[in-house]
Amino acid sequence: MQRKSPKKVLPLSKVYALLESGPVVLLTTANKKGANTMPMSWHTMMEFEPPYVGCIISDRNYSFNILKSTKECVISIPTKELLKKVVACGNTSGRDTNKFKTFGLTVATASAVKAPLIDECYVNLECKVIDTKLVKKYGFFVLEVIKAWIDSKNKMPQTIHHQGKGEFMVAGKIIKTSSKKK
Amino acid sequence: MQRKSPKKVLPLSKVYALLESGPVVLLTTANKKGANTMPMSWHTMMEFEPPYVGCIISDRNYSFNILKSTKECVISIPTKELLKKVVACGNTSGRDTNKFKTFGLTVATASAVKAPLIDECYVNLECKVIDTKLVKKYGFFVLEVIKAWIDSKNKMPQTIHHQGKGEFMVAGKIIKTSSKKK
Repeated sequence: MQRKSPKKVLPLSKVYALLESGPVVLLTTANKKGANTMPMSWHTMMEFEPPYVGCIISDRNYSFNILKSTKECVISIPTKELLKKVVACGNTSGRDTNKFKTFGLTVATASAVKAPLIDECYVNLECKVIDTKLVKKYGFFVLEVIKAWIDSKNKMPQTIHHQGKGEFMVAGKIIKTSSKKK
Repeated sequence: MQRKSPKKVLPLSKVYALLESGPVVLLTTANKKGANTMPMSWHTMMEFEPPYVGCIISDRNYSFNILKSTKECVISIPTKELLKKVVACGNTSGRDTNKFKTFGLTVATASAVKAPLIDECYVNLECKVIDTKLVKKYGFFVLEVIKAWIDSKNKMPQTIHHQGKGEFMVAGKIIKTSSKKK
C-alpha cells in the first residue's frame, strides 16, 4: 500500500541545482574575431557511438550566435586545479574579454574544427552541431563528437560539478559494481 | 600561437563515460500493470523555472512506451546507501520483475502523477512530458517538473554518478567560489 511522502515540499526554483551535477565543461567556439570559451553544466549524452551530446546554451550568451552560425565547437573537461579559471570564464563575457589571454589558458589547434583545444583541460572533444530543432525553443543543440583527446597520464581526474550559486562538488571516490550497463 | 595538442587520441566509444557524470536518477513510470523504475544517467536541466529536464530513454527499455503513452513520471535521486538497489534495478526489467517488491523500495503517493515517489531516495520530482519532438530520433523527452520533494534532514547527500561499465563516482567535497552564475 502506498503512503503519503514524509518529505518536505521543495521550491521548484531549487530543482535545477539538484540535477545539473554533471562535470562542468568549457564550451569553446571561434569566429573571425577569435576564440571564446564558457563554462557549461547543462549537457547530456544522447548516443554512445557516434557520441552525441545535447546541451543548452542561452541566447543571452555570447557563444550562442557563434555556435549557431559556425556549427562547431570544442567541449573541454577541466579538473579541480582549474576551478578558479573556470569561474573567471563564467564571470566574464567574450564580448569584451579575451578569456584565454586574460586567465592564462593555453590553446592548441583542433584537427577538424576551427575552435581550439584547451591544453590545461583533462579532455578535449571536437564537435559539430547536427540538430538545431530545439534551439529556438530551448537553446538545445545536438552535437556529434568527431574527435576526442584525453590526458592519459591523469588517472584520477577530479572533475568539478556545479551545484548552483557557485558551489562545486569535487569528484569523490570510485566504487565498482556488478552493473551490466555500458 | 596555437600548437598541436600534446594529448593522445581517445577512441570515440569511450567519450560517453566522460560526460555522463550527472547524478544517477531513478525514473519511475506507471500503467495498469503497476509501477516500474529504471536508473538513468543521461539527463540535463533545460530551464530554471519552471524546471525543464531533458532525458534520453532508449526504446529498448520497458519504460519507453509507458512514458510515451502516459506522459508522466517521477525522477528520484538516490544516494550512496542505495547503490546496490540502483544497480539491481538496472540489471533487471519491469517486463518480468516487480522491482519495488524484489529490491525492497518503499513507494509513496505522488501529488499530481500516477507514478509513485520512492521514500528511500533523497529527492523525488513529479514530472509531465511536455515535448516529444526528438523522441523518435533520439529517445529524447522534455519533462517539466511540477512538484518536488526533498529529504531536508540530509545535509550531505552523497549522490552517485555513473562513469560507465558499472563504475560509480561518489560525490566528494564541496568548494564555494565567487561564481556569479545561478
